[in-house]
Amino acid sequence: MESKPFVLSVKALVRDAEGRYLALRRAPGSNANAGKWDFPGGKLDEGEGLEAGLLREVFEETGLTVSLVRVVGAAQSDAPKRIVAYLLIEARVESGEVRLSDEHDEFAWTPREELPKVDMVAQFRAFATEFAVRAPGA
Amino acid sequence: MESKPFVLSVKALVRDAEGRYLALRRAPGSNANAGKWDFPGGKLDEGEGLEAGLLREVFEETGLTVSLVRVVGAAQSDAPKRIVAYLLIEARVESGEVRLSDEHDEFAWTPREELPKVDMVAQFRAFATEFAVRAPGA
Repeated sequence: MESKPFVLSVKALVRDAEGRYLALRRAPGSNANAGKWDFPGGKLDEGEGLEAGLLREVFEETGLTVSLVRVVGAAQSDAPKRIVAYLLIEARVESGEVRLSDEHDEFAWTPREELPKVDMVAQFRAFATEFAVRAPGA
Repeated sequence: MESKPFVLSVKALVRDAEGRYLALRRAPGSNANAGKWDFPGGKLDEGEGLEAGLLREVFEETGLTVSLVRVVGAAQSDAPKRIVAYLLIEARVESGEVRLSDEHDEFAWTPREELPKVDMVAQFRAFATEFAVRAPGA
């Protein structure tokens, strides 16, 4: 029987003007998945709405101001003490240049069709594979 | 340019011991989609966590106590003043018998493969079609 709590994390597929998506490499000191590639985003603060929380997380992690476009997927990861439920939302860059936080040590603007080749955290590999072949705009 | 706010709604695919899923018909007085079939769930209250909010919504709308099993999908609906982002989570009945709230006037335990035949709210039709043919447990 499953008794671990479910917690929400919201992630952004940040797209630039050329249609590439922003992936971030988790820093060596990360408590999990160091060196793996991830999307910006994270858990909402207490009482924080979906949009405000995701815009805040993206700005903290990338220095970019973005706007949300559409829901593109969901995923989950099974951690020792909880299950993290991810909602994936495509976003578009409005302004800024990438400036990483201490959480990441590299970034890559990645064409959609190359996302499956990225050494992603496990929870987003199935999504990346499916998203890469999905019709644009779907 | 998209400027509508995104808000989160969490929905449950409540599965019974026979592997059927619970669909609810929206009451005639519903402010949208009256007569269409929906899944239980809804928006989180201010400051409410994902799991607590979904368990509360399911109980209010169905009288069932459930436990969450896994993330199964995402969807969105484009309302006049906002975009609703849906996270869909499979849940299992732990106790109770279905007792509807005023929001719904009928319920149906539906085998997975019959979900695409249900006259669902538009935002879950693509999900129902895909979920119906997905390998069980995936």
